[in-house]
Amino acid sequence: MENAKTLIKKWHKVIESNNLELLNEIIADNAIFSSPVVFKPMEGKEITMMYLHAAGESFNMEKFEYTKEIHDDMNSVLEFETFIDEISVNGVDMIEWNEDGKISNFKVMIRPYKAVQKVQEKMIEALDNLD
Amino acid sequence: MENAKTLIKKWHKVIESNNLELLNEIIADNAIFSSPVVFKPMEGKEITMMYLHAAGESFNMEKFEYTKEIHDDMNSVLEFETFIDEISVNGVDMIEWNEDGKISNFKVMIRPYKAVQKVQEKMIEALDNLD
Repeated sequence: MENAKTLIKKWHKVIESNNLELLNEIIADNAIFSSPVVFKPMEGKEITMMYLHAAGESFNMEKFEYTKEIHDDMNSVLEFETFIDEISVNGVDMIEWNEDGKISNFKVMIRPYKAVQKVQEKMIEALDNLD
Repeated sequence: MENAKTLIKKWHKVIESNNLELLNEIIADNAIFSSPVVFKPMEGKEITMMYLHAAGESFNMEKFEYTKEIHDDMNSVLEFETFIDEISVNGVDMIEWNEDGKISNFKVMIRPYKAVQKVQEKMIEALDNLD
């Protein structure tokens, strides 16, 4: 069976290509997404994909860079640095892979305070735009 | 040489015993601490120990629980859950071990927004009390 160290190549391919079809292929149907801002985890493939896509839209992906990778069994932790508007963001993508080689859990944490505040503002803006 | 998976026992011993002498033994002289709130890393053993001690004072350590451990080579990522006042905190301790088996880098990230906000308030209170 593949493990996190080899499976992570699929995720990097998604990020590099920015291809929603590839993303669709690697997210499990029962995936859970936990945002850096809201405590309650979001359940299901659709909402997980929506949040991952929204993150790509908020972060400056030109400046987005993974700075460290830690893999253990079926868990990957990827540390990143990027910007939102002019605010520096340092964070982690915590990914759990299932036995089918798909992502079953995706949790994001970021620092510092200003970055979390900025993401929260962006989320409120996005919700306002839905009205 | 020991790796993160075995070295982490030293950290757990510090947490369980709440013993500052044991903490002193496992922090490298050139350790760097990165807080969840402030972007700039803090350099040196003294300030790293001060922040780790302060974190223990702010978090409710009775309810503090490590929920996941990820180890790879000389890196440990420990996910935790706890409370500050009545606010739920979910976070990670990201620990880098050096070749002497001491902690050279300690970075903390937490979620959700309310938890980061709470830690920021606590820091401002602590600084006010220094006056």
